[in-house]
Amino acid sequence: MLLTGIGVLATNDPQLGPGLLGEIHDAAVAVEAGWVVWVGREADAPQGVDGERIDVAGRCVVPGFVDAHTHLVFAGDRATEFEARMAGTPYQAGGIRTTVSATRAATTAQLAQGASRLAAEALRGGTTTLETKSGYGLTVVDERRSLEAAATVAGDDVPAVERTFLGAHVVPAEHTIDDYVALVCGEMMQACAPLAAWCDVFCEDGAFGEDEARAVLRAGAAHGLGARIHANQLGHGPGAQLAAEVGAASADHLTFLSDADVAALVDGGVVATLLPAAEFCTRSAPAPARRLLSAGVVVALASDCNPGTSYTTSMPFVVALACQRYGLTAAEAVHAATAGGAAALRRADVGHLAVGAAADLVVIDAPTPVHLAYRPGVQLVATVVRGGRVAWRSAA
Amino acid sequence: MLLTGIGVLATNDPQLGPGLLGEIHDAAVAVEAGWVVWVGREADAPQGVDGERIDVAGRCVVPGFVDAHTHLVFAGDRATEFEARMAGTPYQAGGIRTTVSATRAATTAQLAQGASRLAAEALRGGTTTLETKSGYGLTVVDERRSLEAAATVAGDDVPAVERTFLGAHVVPAEHTIDDYVALVCGEMMQACAPLAAWCDVFCEDGAFGEDEARAVLRAGAAHGLGARIHANQLGHGPGAQLAAEVGAASADHLTFLSDADVAALVDGGVVATLLPAAEFCTRSAPAPARRLLSAGVVVALASDCNPGTSYTTSMPFVVALACQRYGLTAAEAVHAATAGGAAALRRADVGHLAVGAAADLVVIDAPTPVHLAYRPGVQLVATVVRGGRVAWRSAA
Repeated sequence: MLLTGIGVLATNDPQLGPGLLGEIHDAAVAVEAGWVVWVGREADAPQGVDGERIDVAGRCVVPGFVDAHTHLVFAGDRATEFEARMAGTPYQAGGIRTTVSATRAATTAQLAQGASRLAAEALRGGTTTLETKSGYGLTVVDERRSLEAAATVAGDDVPAVERTFLGAHVVPAEHTIDDYVALVCGEMMQACAPLAAWCDVFCEDGAFGEDEARAVLRAGAAHGLGARIHANQLGHGPGAQLAAEVGAASADHLTFLSDADVAALVDGGVVATLLPAAEFCTRSAPAPARRLLSAGVVVALASDCNPGTSYTTSMPFVVALACQRYGLTAAEAVHAATAGGAAALRRADVGHLAVGAAADLVVIDAPTPVHLAYRPGVQLVATVVRGGRVAWRSAA
Repeated sequence: MLLTGIGVLATNDPQLGPGLLGEIHDAAVAVEAGWVVWVGREADAPQGVDGERIDVAGRCVVPGFVDAHTHLVFAGDRATEFEARMAGTPYQAGGIRTTVSATRAATTAQLAQGASRLAAEALRGGTTTLETKSGYGLTVVDERRSLEAAATVAGDDVPAVERTFLGAHVVPAEHTIDDYVALVCGEMMQACAPLAAWCDVFCEDGAFGEDEARAVLRAGAAHGLGARIHANQLGHGPGAQLAAEVGAASADHLTFLSDADVAALVDGGVVATLLPAAEFCTRSAPAPARRLLSAGVVVALASDCNPGTSYTTSMPFVVALACQRYGLTAAEAVHAATAGGAAALRRADVGHLAVGAAADLVVIDAPTPVHLAYRPGVQLVATVVRGGRVAWRSAA
């Protein structure tokens, strides 16, 4: 495949062009067998590229979004809780239990169908790789079923999926916390680890404290799972520093951070995955994105798609929010939503468009990547290419 | 046409069902010659309706959005100014002049094409009626050309359009304010009034003061144009009370309001058209929507689509913002984006779905209208019916 007529190509590779996004103007991209084999100015494009030629007529192209934090496996919705929150009820972690009941009552096929539907929606928004979690089952069987459902999310019309075991999402009503942590670290981990690459824990008042979170992530590591953590969302807490201690790939949320937390993230090389849509939907303060960037932390943006606090799959929406609420430039936000997400998943093959990268890219119906922030709420995703194939085209 | 399988139908008619949205569950709508001829529970639907049958499979249906404040006729964009604002430069009304230069340099055909493209985008977001304005020409010829361009926006793939003369958008560099107001009220009004239904003025520090705004709206009235006004956006000002004085259909923006302003709007029966996307994009405080509703003012929500401060056509995005930033319930926001917009345009035929209303409606890919706010940034518009015909269907 040869993509031509690219007004601005964001490669995310500073060696290929100026700016954080490594922009090439009047560009082309050649793809073979799902990989980028050539990028540069169209005038210099190689001859004789096999396959489809797509002229994008001056539109811009960005790497496919890498959404490193979603919860797509669940049943039911929480529209009623949402309306109550709009009327002033504050968000507390316990709302998760509503979804747990619905999820346990659903068949694995229903869970798979729901996750696939949301994943396809994410792809139509330009997401080509996403991470998703268990965490609404909270029994050995139901956590395992959740990961089985996530494993069925595959095919040309959905993003590539990384799976995370989040048995430690909230303590279910039928357990004490000690009791439940022992289950998560023991039998549940054994059942679930073979189906996941990552282990996550919700480290927050009302969920799991520092010692419990450490135990879960260490048990995950013993089963070969990389660590990630929900940290410092609802208040100051131990999560960010624990992430550094255990060598987590990413600490997520980070709305409330002390200077020591920021320093720990820098020292630990932990990616800060920020979730502005969750803050927006819960009317929370914005995470200190500029402070993190200034300190040298790699920032990722993710959707946190979940039925309680952020029921959106749209990375363009997340980019627009990050600009308005964090004070990021559009380039910083697009970089965080692509290269940042890839770093949060420790993936070198996605989130950029240099030679050797996966041919995952989005044609934006606008002249520059800035328009993703400048035109909030507008469906600008014209075409999504995943693994070198056109996975979706807008009807516009 | 018969629409069946409607999980929830928002009629906006309290006689037809409970709540502000007059909801009917398990509903159907019958359409003939572009008008709603029957609504009710599907079990009671009339037999023998001619034409297409569309089963929406449990999705919800809302009236088409009525976007009562847009600026679609312009050339160029202001992505560079947007990025500067993201980096901290405050918004001032003078940025309009950038667009004025580009608009004057464009052909009428180019202006028409740009406006049609944005109108089609608005329709894909569920807007079936919109108001749009001149205001980037600011000469007799260029204001007239702008309205001619707006008049070409017509057809099955765009909303129905109401046109507004906004010669008094900003004072162009080549005129003093007195000089320019005389032109607007005289020669420019004569050239433009035949192409418009409404007259608008930007009443704000840096644009037009109270006396100038009054003169413009009175001149408009003398030419048969209804009054609307940009008021109290950047600070407290005389606009809201002037709207009441001149009998304006709508006062728009209203971010800064005194108690006397609110009382004047109530007494004058002026609709408050709020523009949360403009506030979002300029990082401004939210308008006091709850105060207005409590006082008994009819609130409309509109996109303010324009290249400077709110480059979005998406009414679902506006609804989501209004819930988060104004504290509206989803029902209040959807009502304001449909019935409210109709009131701001003094239209009885749109913004609701009772018998006799225009068959303008949106099938939302979700079980309830709440999801428009609960699922921000997601393209939930599945099908748009305008004038009884399917104007757009999502590729999802």
